[in-house]
Amino acid sequence: MQSLSTFPETDRLAQFAQGLADVTDAMAMTYFRKPLEIEAKDDDSPVTQADRAIEAEMRRQITQAFPTHGILGEEQESARLESPHIWVIDPIDGTKSFLSGMPTFGTLIACLSDGTPNLGVISIPPTGERWTGQRGQRTTLNGAPCQTSGRTALADAILYTTSPDNFDATGLAQFETLSEKAAMRRFGGDCYGYGLLASGHVDLLFEMNLHPYDYMALIPVVEGAGGVITDWDGEPLTLASDGKIIAAASAPLHAEALAALRATASFR
Amino acid sequence: MQSLSTFPETDRLAQFAQGLADVTDAMAMTYFRKPLEIEAKDDDSPVTQADRAIEAEMRRQITQAFPTHGILGEEQESARLESPHIWVIDPIDGTKSFLSGMPTFGTLIACLSDGTPNLGVISIPPTGERWTGQRGQRTTLNGAPCQTSGRTALADAILYTTSPDNFDATGLAQFETLSEKAAMRRFGGDCYGYGLLASGHVDLLFEMNLHPYDYMALIPVVEGAGGVITDWDGEPLTLASDGKIIAAASAPLHAEALAALRATASFR
Repeated sequence: MQSLSTFPETDRLAQFAQGLADVTDAMAMTYFRKPLEIEAKDDDSPVTQADRAIEAEMRRQITQAFPTHGILGEEQESARLESPHIWVIDPIDGTKSFLSGMPTFGTLIACLSDGTPNLGVISIPPTGERWTGQRGQRTTLNGAPCQTSGRTALADAILYTTSPDNFDATGLAQFETLSEKAAMRRFGGDCYGYGLLASGHVDLLFEMNLHPYDYMALIPVVEGAGGVITDWDGEPLTLASDGKIIAAASAPLHAEALAALRATASFR
Repeated sequence: MQSLSTFPETDRLAQFAQGLADVTDAMAMTYFRKPLEIEAKDDDSPVTQADRAIEAEMRRQITQAFPTHGILGEEQESARLESPHIWVIDPIDGTKSFLSGMPTFGTLIACLSDGTPNLGVISIPPTGERWTGQRGQRTTLNGAPCQTSGRTALADAILYTTSPDNFDATGLAQFETLSEKAAMRRFGGDCYGYGLLASGHVDLLFEMNLHPYDYMALIPVVEGAGGVITDWDGEPLTLASDGKIIAAASAPLHAEALAALRATASFR
């Protein structure tokens, strides 16, 4: 058995993230489908006791294991963002799902080095599914390699977005453009939709108003499964991105979707 | 151990339905997340090999066990609808979920006597959850009694609908009316949302364009958990209903939602 110290750095981070996700999965399930206090935040998204408790535990473990690393999370203030290594975490992505008993919410864990997400974990506590992406490696679902559908034509694509309520008018028009050209669209997914993309069941995702803690963990998962994920201009996602996300099962599908968006008069 | 023949009639039907759902759950999982042929039906909903195979098996078992009973299903022509006992079945409710790997589709089984649904089963193959409703009995989730939240105020209610795409313009306006008054709305659910209602996680559902095979099984599940389910006029659902469904966690919530709909100028 290899000792921890001989693992390459990203594998050591990945192993830590798996242990962290094991803990947060168990914590989430102690809150899921139990009565909770719902309170309103500034942006009107529901915040739960679970969110806060899980993020606090994540920060505690990260700080203990990697005291010099930065942390950017949903619930609390950022710490040490000047560090070359930054953990970007979302204790419960899909809060509306979580609050209504829908078992498709997830915990998101990303680790960035010099701004690049080298590690991403999408963990779905109720179903026990966990997608792990590491730069340069094939994405896995519960340890087994997975890949996107590889679908290339927009006309054949299954399109997901979490909710029409997350778009502004221009964004909704863009989403309608893609919908008209896609084979099918479905609402409701949060991070789970990106796992389904990485496993070949969904072909295209289109969303806006995501935060870094919503999308950073998705990047290694999608890219390591053969997919493409960028902003709506086709640019790589960074901590400074505008939160407009498009993810596709293949480079040709991504290019066709971007072209369709550009061809729409209302774009920009 | 009691012999089958001494069970009251509805318990015998319920026991048969459990065995049937065991078989259809297993069948559905052999197709779920596997490559499928997608074809377009007249109404443009996707039909799968799984839909047809599972409904054929359901019809075979029902006809073998109850040769005089009628059958109304999604995929094949109705049979013996003049019978006082009619099985109303949907092999895969939530076809878009099924086709995109989302584990919240379900199989619906209802048995009507003289037009009244005395038995309803919502079975969710990927999660292993099964809600069973029998007239005059408490609804169960996997054998354990369950109940709605009992929530009474629309302002506190979590509202679900499967997709905005299922409404016409008037229906969508009605849905917006409820959304504005509810605490939160979420899209994506199909029959799973009614199970979540019966277990107290969702408080209000509002949908249109449902067919009898979509809603008949929901009725005993919702009512046996303390909820109310009717058409948008508050009338009991029958095989001849117009497919506009409202389901609520309590009678006061149902009444408040209907009153809000009636108060909207655009209604009717």
